[in-house]
Amino acid sequence: MKYPDSLNNLIESLKKLPTIGEKSAERLAFAIMNMDDEDTDIFSKSIKDVKTKIKKCKNCGNITEDDICSICSNDERDKSLLCVVEDAKNIITLEKMGTYFGMYHVLNGLISPIDGIGPEDIEIKSLIDKVKEDIKEVIIAISPTLEGETTALYISKLLEENKKVVVSRIAYGIPLGADMEYLDPMTLSMALNNRNKIS
Amino acid sequence: MKYPDSLNNLIESLKKLPTIGEKSAERLAFAIMNMDDEDTDIFSKSIKDVKTKIKKCKNCGNITEDDICSICSNDERDKSLLCVVEDAKNIITLEKMGTYFGMYHVLNGLISPIDGIGPEDIEIKSLIDKVKEDIKEVIIAISPTLEGETTALYISKLLEENKKVVVSRIAYGIPLGADMEYLDPMTLSMALNNRNKIS
Repeated sequence: MKYPDSLNNLIESLKKLPTIGEKSAERLAFAIMNMDDEDTDIFSKSIKDVKTKIKKCKNCGNITEDDICSICSNDERDKSLLCVVEDAKNIITLEKMGTYFGMYHVLNGLISPIDGIGPEDIEIKSLIDKVKEDIKEVIIAISPTLEGETTALYISKLLEENKKVVVSRIAYGIPLGADMEYLDPMTLSMALNNRNKIS
Repeated sequence: MKYPDSLNNLIESLKKLPTIGEKSAERLAFAIMNMDDEDTDIFSKSIKDVKTKIKKCKNCGNITEDDICSICSNDERDKSLLCVVEDAKNIITLEKMGTYFGMYHVLNGLISPIDGIGPEDIEIKSLIDKVKEDIKEVIIAISPTLEGETTALYISKLLEENKKVVVSRIAYGIPLGADMEYLDPMTLSMALNNRNKIS
């Protein structure tokens, strides 16, 4: 027995999402079938809307429904602080802390020679141009992977000539609540190198 | 920072699905945002379609886009064998085996006094009526839970008077490949009660 066409289309669509396999897609599809009409209307419409309404902020690359995102258009934020992230998703994570009040710059990727992604393929030129304005500190907040390290190094080299700006990087070390026993050697080595005096 | 409205609606819709929490909903929403336009069109449309096009088969209660489902309208299936299931989903699971060629009857629930669901709230009357026709065997394939046991007992009592029909139940026992050590006592007790002679 085959599923009815519409249900089959829904299952195939769900399977295109990350972490959703055959079984999960089936379960979710049945759940959607049992939702209220109102809920499925909103669901169906929101999928169309995120594709048509959401665009990149012309200033920082954050996601927004307007030309300029809510962070860039907020006059109370510190325009002298610029946090560089890989993806717009990272802005959400950082904003959830509620303790950073500077601006952002989304790179839209990382330098990765193995994937053929060079510095010109991501938003590095626009970053350098932006730093020429009155920015005091550039905080690099990208993952400590091979690509992340390459990108961070490349950006800091380019900004080296600009004597007015401080380039910093978020601290890497052992996460809060971590068990020493299960830490990977790379993290441990970073935590050791970045050790702080406590007395 | 808040998400743009359309993205927020999508995240809220995803969170209504089983097993999808805040984090997963965010990740899935971002994945949907990065899908091709064509894919999101199909996704969005299929959600509407499963609500509007899919209905219950008038004969067995299986899901279908027509009046009668593909199983009921298949002349090659054995009309004398009727398998009773709780939900249309179970039909898919049974059909995946590819070894059962009889008909189905969907109860649409189980008797559950604690939830106020009595025999009249599920498809029991239509089952009894159906069995009056030329059915030789009714196979009860519902879960061995409290509600499942109650429902199975109720159905078999009602069919007792009908001497022409055999009422059977799928076997419960230890699943293939199970480790004895991790079996729950209920399953083990059922497996012991249903033991078979091997020589």
